[in-house]
Amino acid sequence: TTSKRGWHPLNHLEHLLGWEDARRLIHGMKVGISIVLVSLLYILDALHDRLGDNSMWAIVTVVVMFRFTSGATIQKGLNRCVGTICGGGMGIMLVLWPHRFNIGEQGRLTITASGLFIICTAASYFRMIPCVKKKYDHGVMFFIMIFSLVSVFGVRNDDIVKQANDLLASIFIGITISIIVNVLVFPVWAADQLHASLDSNLNCLASSIEENVKEYFRPIADKLEGRRSQDNFKGCKSVIYSKATDESMIKFAKWECRIGRFGLKHCWDDYLVIGNLISDLAIFVLSLRSCRKSKYPAHSVSLVEEIKTQCEAIGNSVGSIMRKLGDHLIKRTRCDASDHIGSLEYHSHELTKLICHLDIKLSAIQANNSQTLGFAQTTQFMLILGNIIDRLEELLI
Amino acid sequence: TTSKRGWHPLNHLEHLLGWEDARRLIHGMKVGISIVLVSLLYILDALHDRLGDNSMWAIVTVVVMFRFTSGATIQKGLNRCVGTICGGGMGIMLVLWPHRFNIGEQGRLTITASGLFIICTAASYFRMIPCVKKKYDHGVMFFIMIFSLVSVFGVRNDDIVKQANDLLASIFIGITISIIVNVLVFPVWAADQLHASLDSNLNCLASSIEENVKEYFRPIADKLEGRRSQDNFKGCKSVIYSKATDESMIKFAKWECRIGRFGLKHCWDDYLVIGNLISDLAIFVLSLRSCRKSKYPAHSVSLVEEIKTQCEAIGNSVGSIMRKLGDHLIKRTRCDASDHIGSLEYHSHELTKLICHLDIKLSAIQANNSQTLGFAQTTQFMLILGNIIDRLEELLI
Repeated sequence: TTSKRGWHPLNHLEHLLGWEDARRLIHGMKVGISIVLVSLLYILDALHDRLGDNSMWAIVTVVVMFRFTSGATIQKGLNRCVGTICGGGMGIMLVLWPHRFNIGEQGRLTITASGLFIICTAASYFRMIPCVKKKYDHGVMFFIMIFSLVSVFGVRNDDIVKQANDLLASIFIGITISIIVNVLVFPVWAADQLHASLDSNLNCLASSIEENVKEYFRPIADKLEGRRSQDNFKGCKSVIYSKATDESMIKFAKWECRIGRFGLKHCWDDYLVIGNLISDLAIFVLSLRSCRKSKYPAHSVSLVEEIKTQCEAIGNSVGSIMRKLGDHLIKRTRCDASDHIGSLEYHSHELTKLICHLDIKLSAIQANNSQTLGFAQTTQFMLILGNIIDRLEELLI
Repeated sequence: TTSKRGWHPLNHLEHLLGWEDARRLIHGMKVGISIVLVSLLYILDALHDRLGDNSMWAIVTVVVMFRFTSGATIQKGLNRCVGTICGGGMGIMLVLWPHRFNIGEQGRLTITASGLFIICTAASYFRMIPCVKKKYDHGVMFFIMIFSLVSVFGVRNDDIVKQANDLLASIFIGITISIIVNVLVFPVWAADQLHASLDSNLNCLASSIEENVKEYFRPIADKLEGRRSQDNFKGCKSVIYSKATDESMIKFAKWECRIGRFGLKHCWDDYLVIGNLISDLAIFVLSLRSCRKSKYPAHSVSLVEEIKTQCEAIGNSVGSIMRKLGDHLIKRTRCDASDHIGSLEYHSHELTKLICHLDIKLSAIQANNSQTLGFAQTTQFMLILGNIIDRLEELLI
């Protein structure tokens, strides 16, 4: 396999370490490259003479802002740019402004300290407001940091404007190097992550539905052996919780399209809707699972057999449709919804018929209380299946 | 109201701004105080002579690590301590080690650069591993930062050990001041936040259940007017999503108990279980809501009236039990579970009877298909109610 290395380092690495690990290693190497590049600012004499010790800020910048995906790095970088510029500007003002008055060293110090206190308080307060925290947390943090540094420097250094300029220049160099390395060296796109996550969520739900349906109609003796898989349940829950990650991915993906990867018109908001529908689906699948927990398992074997084959067919078809949807998402092709919707509507119709059939059977056999409950629960199970189908139809449209 | 100000500044502030805003303002002021305190390191001559320009690192430390809750600040601070010490130590080693060989300036630079690349790559790789990222993200980030700074400083400064010492000392001062200010000045405890969040989640679910039950049995004409509240639905979803926040609060609360607020024995892991149960409850409530979306509303008015009163009674009692639980959590009193469990079991029994009754009625009136479906859905609704009751019982135990 080593012979391949020359022309396919990435594939080779994936083969050797697995997909996840290979990506992490590449991320690590990207960070390493960026840090070495910015260290040159400090190490090389020509550059150090220009920027002085301020060049170490480029290192700090790279370490703090380098993220896994390109979109996140770009967003953080721009956030940081704005925060740095505002912070630097206000810091310089705070330093220069007291010089206008004739108040002596002590007075100036007092003004600086109280200005520092007031503006840091205000900015931290501002940072804690939820909508600001969500979008500009990083930017406000750097505003506070740069502002306090510049105003404190101003106390000792006479040429604060040059100092602040150098500081800002090295931070911008750090930002630029981070973004360039992140975008050019084996970039990891948030958009790809998003597609992969939606696809894996759909796959997880699909197998969960199929397994739940199978499990539900297994003989009760089997169930008591405790052979129920917790994995799928956790999978579904993680689908629900992954929504927050997906949302931030969408946010980052929007930034990526600004550098021209997908074109500005790519409708990322649709992905929000898709993500919502998927998490609704996950909630239904979880409540499907809760049917399995019911205390009264369905009794009458003959009736259950009748329903079983139909429900399994429905479960499998729903699962396969979800898998296909996932594939379409990954390949970014438009899927032909009408076919799937047709089959879903057929299933939905079948389910309705089945439920009515069950009820008629039930009144015919004059069941006792516990049997009635068992049937009611089977009906519930089927109704939830019906709900899932409805939601899937929405997803397809 | 101003007369109260002297002896109750916090209450007064809350009265003036509302609870959330008051807390944010106090947080902002705490950040302001800490930043002014660490700026003194740089501003005051006596201190500046000792630490030099390194004292600005104390400012950076405070800005980056100051968090809203005490637990989070302590955890971040300790994380940062360990990261800083390791990073500083390895950085000094990387600087001093090449001096043992006789390889000249160029050779030493090459060794430093490659060492920097290798260790930063390794650390970034390590940082991306999910379990490390969850717990030590901050620590590893500061390891990378301090390590690269110290090794880069080593290229120009001769007395790297003193330089690194000063750097580390100012960072530790920053950490200490952050923690002290955060814990002593109007502290916000993660444990309190956790209790408040669990309580509000329970309250939200309680009102959601009550409203869902009421809504379900409203005449269909009313429903079509579109007077359904989206708020509650969002509330339930946010209960599910708040689980991640709650989990980190529990993590932070564990740190707080180490400084002796609750005692080491306080069983925080129980809260994890409670949080899980609450989020399960939320999933059931959401599926309760999905019943309202069903296409076939229950038809026969006489039967519905019968069920309605019972279900509403159950819904209200479930809701009030949840509210009481929330109160108990806030006040940290043990609630007398046996009473509640008794009434829940009574309700559960009632529901079972009701479902059987419904089925018998159904076979008596020979309903048509659409009516059957309507009843089946009502049954589903009641079964989910039953599930909620079961889960609530688990919560009480």
